[in-house]
Amino acid sequence: MKIATFTEGGRTRLGVVQREEIADVSVADARLPQDMVTLLEAGTEAQDALAAAAERAPRLALKSVRLEAPVMRPRKFLGLGLSFKSHVEEIRARGVPIPLTANQVWFNKQVTSISGPYDPIHLPRVSSQLDYEGEVAFVIGKKCRHVPADKASDVIAGFLICNDVSVRDWQLRSPTSTLGKSFDTHGPIGPWLTTADDVENPHDLRIRTWVDDELRQDGSTSDFVYSIGEMIAELTTVFTLEPGDVLTTGCPAGVGAMFDPPRFMKAGQKVRVEVDGLGAIENPVIDEPTN
Amino acid sequence: MKIATFTEGGRTRLGVVQREEIADVSVADARLPQDMVTLLEAGTEAQDALAAAAERAPRLALKSVRLEAPVMRPRKFLGLGLSFKSHVEEIRARGVPIPLTANQVWFNKQVTSISGPYDPIHLPRVSSQLDYEGEVAFVIGKKCRHVPADKASDVIAGFLICNDVSVRDWQLRSPTSTLGKSFDTHGPIGPWLTTADDVENPHDLRIRTWVDDELRQDGSTSDFVYSIGEMIAELTTVFTLEPGDVLTTGCPAGVGAMFDPPRFMKAGQKVRVEVDGLGAIENPVIDEPTN
Repeated sequence: MKIATFTEGGRTRLGVVQREEIADVSVADARLPQDMVTLLEAGTEAQDALAAAAERAPRLALKSVRLEAPVMRPRKFLGLGLSFKSHVEEIRARGVPIPLTANQVWFNKQVTSISGPYDPIHLPRVSSQLDYEGEVAFVIGKKCRHVPADKASDVIAGFLICNDVSVRDWQLRSPTSTLGKSFDTHGPIGPWLTTADDVENPHDLRIRTWVDDELRQDGSTSDFVYSIGEMIAELTTVFTLEPGDVLTTGCPAGVGAMFDPPRFMKAGQKVRVEVDGLGAIENPVIDEPTN
Repeated sequence: MKIATFTEGGRTRLGVVQREEIADVSVADARLPQDMVTLLEAGTEAQDALAAAAERAPRLALKSVRLEAPVMRPRKFLGLGLSFKSHVEEIRARGVPIPLTANQVWFNKQVTSISGPYDPIHLPRVSSQLDYEGEVAFVIGKKCRHVPADKASDVIAGFLICNDVSVRDWQLRSPTSTLGKSFDTHGPIGPWLTTADDVENPHDLRIRTWVDDELRQDGSTSDFVYSIGEMIAELTTVFTLEPGDVLTTGCPAGVGAMFDPPRFMKAGQKVRVEVDGLGAIENPVIDEPTN
């Protein structure tokens, strides 16, 4: 099932995507949760009700609605660095001094950076080093702690695409990366949540990123340094994950910063991330508004 | 005004602390918001109504209620590292290789680490390097972006105490510090929000931290490397701050890790952080439950 958050007629709600249409499920069942976090908190029964409502709900043309970030207000939004072998190699090849430890390098993107699958990305006033990272993210479906790697699939609601937009000079100003990963509009996600039962093998998904019409990243999650189970085990050793939490898993080789000279994004360009089975997101780059 | 979040009779709500009592404001005005984020989002009018309700509300003995984290579910919870001159000096003196740049080193504590002012701190199963950091935190009162340092006081709702509990080996496993700062129960805050108009000078607050009866940290926010205005200017250059966001400002010299040999916290101890004008929080250390 592909669960989207969309706005139409001034109202934002959940829908189920079916080819070029979206089933307006709240019309069929007014008791359904209208946002993703509430739906996931309500558990599998609510998701079954959503699927049933989709069968009898009126359909809208996908083109006629505005798709929002599938999870508009997650409680947590974290990313993993140095998690693709090809990306680690391109960084090593450039002689950049990075800590290549045996440990997972997690950082937060602020939840205020979340934006929709076709929303503009702001080129900040304070930097020209705007870069893309095409990634697969997973969304948590159950409150959990201390989840062993081999039980991790029990707590995953589904998958979506994330562009982990990064401002490289600000990222390197502090070892924590916090500020450079968290500018407003730098967390576009979407286009919808593909539920886990519809993703055959999350460790075999091709990820491609284009800037305008030029292919920049072409990798596969088969190149992960850590499995998704290992990621969830590491995180839940430390803290509780909750329904709707978004965890993005890092990107393959080909980021703009690793070209020589670097090729950062400019206003007027568009960046597209496509993942097999998950759809595509495409965001125009604009100058940060001055208001 | 001292605004607390408390539980009594099975119900959690806001109250106003007056000496040894708490005014049960929702009895006097049932329309008042019952949690801090909603109150701050409602703006100054709601806070004036709260103050008015406190005048006529029934009072409960402070000892008879359970004080919760004043902001139970903030959207953001970040901490600042290397922000006291005395703490930077103690780290330098130990020859620890740290990046001493001109930049502010912000990191996230996960919002799930938030706990109450007297709640237990868990000694994790996976580490014995449990350390304290007694700090002053500020809470945002207005949605804001691009706030100049000299306007920062406009967006601060008030101040509270935070123990930025840290697991030192996990903190050092990754340059981002994310995991070592975010264990469940490692963000006790409280005992209440002291509104900004009741804090004469936030850059002249004495902070003391005791482990059992031994004074370990004794510093003052007059020793800050950055002003609070500079902190808010830096953060809002990058992202939007929202009502209820909790930002903790770092700690003075005296953390357990800097003793030789280090003096980490053990189960059975208690840690107390006291700040002039803001009250005190005191948390017992227990082994992480095995449930």
